[in-house]
Amino acid sequence: MTRFLSSSVFLVQLIMLLPWLSIASLEPKKSQTYIIHMDHSLKPEHFSNHESWHQHTVKSLSSACVEDKETFLYSYTHVMHGFSAKLTSCQLAELEKLPAHITTYKESFGKMFTTHTPRFLGLNRGSGIWPTASYGKDAIIGVIDTGIWPESESFNDKGMSEVPSRWKGKCENGTAFSPSLCNNKLIGARSFSKGLQAAGINISTEYDFDSARDYFGHGSHTSSTAAGNEGRNQGSRVLTMVTKTCNYVYGASHFGYANGVAKGIAPRAHLAMYKVLWLSDTEVSAATDVLAGMDQAISDGVDIMSLSLGFDNTPLFKDVIAIASLSAIEKGIVVVCAAGNDAAPASIHNGAPWIMTVGAGTLDRSYIATLELGNGLNFEGTSYFPMSVSITNRHLYYGSNDTRVGGCKYLPRDQVKGKVVLCDDSNLDLNGQMQTVILSGAYAAIFLSESLLLDPEEYSLPGVVLHTRYAKAIKEYATTSNNTIVKSMRFGLTKTGTGPAPQVAYFSSRGPDPITPSVLKPDILAPGVDVLGAVRPDVSYIEAGRYELVSNYMLMSGTSMAAPHVAGIAALVKAVHRDWSPAAIRSAMVTTATKTDNTLGTIRDQWNGEIATPLAFGAGLVNPNGAMDPGLIYDMGPQDYINFLCGLGYTATQMSTILRSSQWSCENRTDLNYPTFIANFSNQTTLLSEKQFTRTVRNVGDHASTYRASLKVPPGMILEVEPNTIKFTNKYQEQKFVLTIRVGQHIPKVNYGYLEWIDEHNHIVSSPIVVLKD
Amino acid sequence: MTRFLSSSVFLVQLIMLLPWLSIASLEPKKSQTYIIHMDHSLKPEHFSNHESWHQHTVKSLSSACVEDKETFLYSYTHVMHGFSAKLTSCQLAELEKLPAHITTYKESFGKMFTTHTPRFLGLNRGSGIWPTASYGKDAIIGVIDTGIWPESESFNDKGMSEVPSRWKGKCENGTAFSPSLCNNKLIGARSFSKGLQAAGINISTEYDFDSARDYFGHGSHTSSTAAGNEGRNQGSRVLTMVTKTCNYVYGASHFGYANGVAKGIAPRAHLAMYKVLWLSDTEVSAATDVLAGMDQAISDGVDIMSLSLGFDNTPLFKDVIAIASLSAIEKGIVVVCAAGNDAAPASIHNGAPWIMTVGAGTLDRSYIATLELGNGLNFEGTSYFPMSVSITNRHLYYGSNDTRVGGCKYLPRDQVKGKVVLCDDSNLDLNGQMQTVILSGAYAAIFLSESLLLDPEEYSLPGVVLHTRYAKAIKEYATTSNNTIVKSMRFGLTKTGTGPAPQVAYFSSRGPDPITPSVLKPDILAPGVDVLGAVRPDVSYIEAGRYELVSNYMLMSGTSMAAPHVAGIAALVKAVHRDWSPAAIRSAMVTTATKTDNTLGTIRDQWNGEIATPLAFGAGLVNPNGAMDPGLIYDMGPQDYINFLCGLGYTATQMSTILRSSQWSCENRTDLNYPTFIANFSNQTTLLSEKQFTRTVRNVGDHASTYRASLKVPPGMILEVEPNTIKFTNKYQEQKFVLTIRVGQHIPKVNYGYLEWIDEHNHIVSSPIVVLKD
Repeated sequence: MTRFLSSSVFLVQLIMLLPWLSIASLEPKKSQTYIIHMDHSLKPEHFSNHESWHQHTVKSLSSACVEDKETFLYSYTHVMHGFSAKLTSCQLAELEKLPAHITTYKESFGKMFTTHTPRFLGLNRGSGIWPTASYGKDAIIGVIDTGIWPESESFNDKGMSEVPSRWKGKCENGTAFSPSLCNNKLIGARSFSKGLQAAGINISTEYDFDSARDYFGHGSHTSSTAAGNEGRNQGSRVLTMVTKTCNYVYGASHFGYANGVAKGIAPRAHLAMYKVLWLSDTEVSAATDVLAGMDQAISDGVDIMSLSLGFDNTPLFKDVIAIASLSAIEKGIVVVCAAGNDAAPASIHNGAPWIMTVGAGTLDRSYIATLELGNGLNFEGTSYFPMSVSITNRHLYYGSNDTRVGGCKYLPRDQVKGKVVLCDDSNLDLNGQMQTVILSGAYAAIFLSESLLLDPEEYSLPGVVLHTRYAKAIKEYATTSNNTIVKSMRFGLTKTGTGPAPQVAYFSSRGPDPITPSVLKPDILAPGVDVLGAVRPDVSYIEAGRYELVSNYMLMSGTSMAAPHVAGIAALVKAVHRDWSPAAIRSAMVTTATKTDNTLGTIRDQWNGEIATPLAFGAGLVNPNGAMDPGLIYDMGPQDYINFLCGLGYTATQMSTILRSSQWSCENRTDLNYPTFIANFSNQTTLLSEKQFTRTVRNVGDHASTYRASLKVPPGMILEVEPNTIKFTNKYQEQKFVLTIRVGQHIPKVNYGYLEWIDEHNHIVSSPIVVLKD
Repeated sequence: MTRFLSSSVFLVQLIMLLPWLSIASLEPKKSQTYIIHMDHSLKPEHFSNHESWHQHTVKSLSSACVEDKETFLYSYTHVMHGFSAKLTSCQLAELEKLPAHITTYKESFGKMFTTHTPRFLGLNRGSGIWPTASYGKDAIIGVIDTGIWPESESFNDKGMSEVPSRWKGKCENGTAFSPSLCNNKLIGARSFSKGLQAAGINISTEYDFDSARDYFGHGSHTSSTAAGNEGRNQGSRVLTMVTKTCNYVYGASHFGYANGVAKGIAPRAHLAMYKVLWLSDTEVSAATDVLAGMDQAISDGVDIMSLSLGFDNTPLFKDVIAIASLSAIEKGIVVVCAAGNDAAPASIHNGAPWIMTVGAGTLDRSYIATLELGNGLNFEGTSYFPMSVSITNRHLYYGSNDTRVGGCKYLPRDQVKGKVVLCDDSNLDLNGQMQTVILSGAYAAIFLSESLLLDPEEYSLPGVVLHTRYAKAIKEYATTSNNTIVKSMRFGLTKTGTGPAPQVAYFSSRGPDPITPSVLKPDILAPGVDVLGAVRPDVSYIEAGRYELVSNYMLMSGTSMAAPHVAGIAALVKAVHRDWSPAAIRSAMVTTATKTDNTLGTIRDQWNGEIATPLAFGAGLVNPNGAMDPGLIYDMGPQDYINFLCGLGYTATQMSTILRSSQWSCENRTDLNYPTFIANFSNQTTLLSEKQFTRTVRNVGDHASTYRASLKVPPGMILEVEPNTIKFTNKYQEQKFVLTIRVGQHIPKVNYGYLEWIDEHNHIVSSPIVVLKD
């Protein structure tokens, strides 16, 4: 049984996984939805296509078994061979006896994961990949998400090229959506809800739009990150509201924070939305729908697919996204997925070796408030309060000894009203304390906390979260008299150039990948904390000063926000190198990623401030300009992935499920030509153990080049590269090398180094090497 | 006795003039400040310069007369010949007996007048005057105002050229100001307060900074309009606060309205601030200080002077700005002044014929809120509430019959709390009604009003002002039951492309000029309503939802905002045509101004919605791209102004006061070569009266050209041009023509038409012709 990976959307904190079993109880008892894998080679010839065969197969099941009228959901052509249908157990039993039947999966449900970023990533108009790739011109990015708000200024089509003639997609009619809302930017918009409806979940307009229109804002946000256009007017957005015809101009900002131009990574790429995530009353989405969306995206002709959602970890032959992605990869489509928001080690999702798996990093931008106490001491802390408020000379309330014990758990309204409250218990939940403060009638609040975990949308009163390192000084003043004051507080400040940045977002799922630990995941890091993107402009996400606020751009956090950055960059790389395979594009990004932060130290972990490892940041922060000219690439094709799967010991049925074919051959080369290295010595028995990796690199630089290996070796082991100099006499030439890792018995649990191939033309082809020992 | 023209700053409504007499009472009884005009030709040779002579003159007054130690204030070199000093009546009597003494003026006091505008004016990067003038590169604009906030992002010097070598100005040390705050954008910053201090007014840090730092924000606003730079970051401003060293990024917006990039008209021009307006406890400024600032600006070498302040109307020989401006004009400096905010006919200030006098127009941008009532009716009105608030399903309160009579004069708190209040008495002061609504505990308010006069800073609660044309529909619903609701209200919307725009701002002072009615004033219209500009970021101008808000850019309205637009355009024109005189630059702007609004009708008056006349809009809305290539110019030089003054019948002393010389000659040509025409037939006695205007036009087009006259003749009169075809065989050639106006006895009071000279190269040289009859 599969389980969707839940994902935090917009919230900085981690949303816990929705347990599968509670979802399962939603399923009707009598019939359930199943995904049926079929052997397409057994299709009788008189069926003109697979769908008619699928439908006929379902129809011809014993009528005694049939209960519901509409049982057939989707026929899948590209992502897998098979279909989904609502079947009774009796029908299923009958179906499973058919020779063409391969496997059955029960339907599963889940919910989704969840801008100065172009500049932070080094994108600029003057030079580099943006102008070279014509900003992603002609590339088509398919986003599998909650839908899109087509009127958002991010999806205007000014300056866009015509819809490519190869495009087969379309914009569907639906609730509050018509094909006329599409344009040269948004060239496709479809929605998939049959699976959800088959499970008895009603898509009412109370909870969602029965169309590609985005109810929640998540899909608009990710789409605007990947390929949002620039505004029609420099620095302002024009947005036509659904029920109005005139133009309202908004600024692109989160209530004044992060103010500026919200621009996507590939602003000239086309977008196609495949809505598969629904905010029904139970907030679930069906695997059948996700598959249908991906199937359609392949059929329509997208170049890149971006998924900010994921299924819970299952073997690859049960992981529908993994299966559908392999099909996409075979057609040259780059599939980029969020790694998940589970924070813990070995919590990676979407780690199939053909997927580009993206972790989330922080930006060099922080949202702050300043505080000056009556004694002249100044402090600076985190605040997302959505108004540029200035507070001067207000009484400070620190509570009695009793209430001090509880932080701001209890506040006496008569003593607190109109004052600035100091909440000093960093062990208490900040969101709860904020609620208490709001109800108390206080004017503003100061929270002391070590880990800064107050969600942006909780700031409905001017509150600042200060680090506990200031606690002593603040409390000292607060207890000097009963008449202490806050001299000034200032809210609504955005600070840029803060460091160290990036850090690995504390919520970002860490490797190793629990399913395929022999591949280093995540592949790469991209901005995923406080990312500014388009949202629904007509609903309020935030309250302040007793009013509900609306905005058309908002900050959201999650690996959901990181994945579309990489999807946009993939579109740029593809625009420059149209013949590169998905593996080549990934290799280019991985080997050029940045391992250091803006203080020139190794990327740190936001969780504890310590130096992070490639298990958290993969190859490092994606570097779009570097990815354009990587020097060498580690390429792979479908047969490489087959060889890899052959090594996993899957049954023939499992193999044919993944490969959508009963015909495949194992070449006995199970070592993937991956651009990173991970070695697990957990079963080490001898004094000195050894692992070897064989790789092939292709020269994609324009010159004859000589690459020399440079190794950054972790303590306690020996690394060798043979040969350690590789000469390329012409472009596209390939060369092999072998990396050997020898470790003693007494190394730390996690070790990492780097292999860098350096040529005379400033190419540094860098690969992290992770060595694990249990 | 002179009186300063008061000016509305930021407020949309008119600030009443501060009566001179109440200011006079501030003066110490024993000694007063005087401005003494001297005949500089009588300076004894042993004084090395005029200042030492001035100082000696004051020192050598009978010691019996002397009371205070420091009596000497300023020596004036450029703006006039003379000095200012604090003198007893005994000293003054002695001084007035000296042969070199010409005239004495008592010190006077007053207060000041008060951005998608570049785009509204047709400025763009692709073509036109912006790229041609290199965005005003190398031009120096001197702003005579309240000081400047040097850290504002508008005054960063990214992309600025070096300080021109001819520049003699400097940045003075002072309170919260040091020379290091200047850069290649802000190249001069001085302050002048001796006059104010001599009057016993203390410049304490309670009320103002004793330096060029802007206490109020007015000077920062006008400076950013004239020559504000683009941001360091596209779409965002970096601003270093005085007491901090880190960078805070703000968006350029008025609390979310008018969001975008605040850019000046001449973004590459240099700025020099001459602070002469002070916000002391009495909010007054001294004429001696204004003169000293202008004198210094001339000495420092500014190219353009922008004054958003004015003295009350007096004959030219008593008008210190007029006198100082003539001196500037002689040195080739363009002087641009605000026309005043007095709304009424014949209320023009700064109307001297050598000054560019600027009226204020509206923009095509409006700040709105939407309203949907419970019955589904939708409305749109004006709102400046500084938060993007969304209100849904709130009770509507319309009051009892009793309270209805008074609109929202009285509101019963227990019935109103938490509701949306409808205030329907459009005769009641809106600001007062808003105060009542706020105190009542209401949640939001709907005001019905015909003239939309609620100041932006009064919106401390979500209020929308709807036009009374909706009153019937709204009241009809409000009285249907006791349970009416507001279905939704949405605040924080900016609408662009609204029309008709421009309109003449209702507050803009109208012609004819009371002092020199023979010259049509204002000369031109520029944006002056809801202009986004830089302000002090550290003080709150606006409250909302019980919090005080701060912003680094704000909307302000006034002819104060219009003048710096024209100053910026003058810098652009001067950058293209470095040899043009101030009169030529003005002619170019006047003859190319736009007479129609964005609905292609004649510019209307905001006051009543009726079609306005050149008495309100001068030649029309300034058109920077047109001004670059006017085809013909009406030029003038100092002697033309002398001839004009000769015709005014001034005494020799009055003449020498204005001209700073006892030597001048009248050439008996009193008809100024002005690019507009105004004829006053108020003393008409005969059946048919006639006026003739002789003009000389110079071909500044690059080609030989033939211009044909096209006349738009108002009813009831005859206009003739002789010759009506003018041929130019080469550039810089001059030709004369005579315009004759013949009117009958029965024409309306105000009539206007146009003379257009049209050539074969798309030049239309347009001059308004105004005919008045009393």
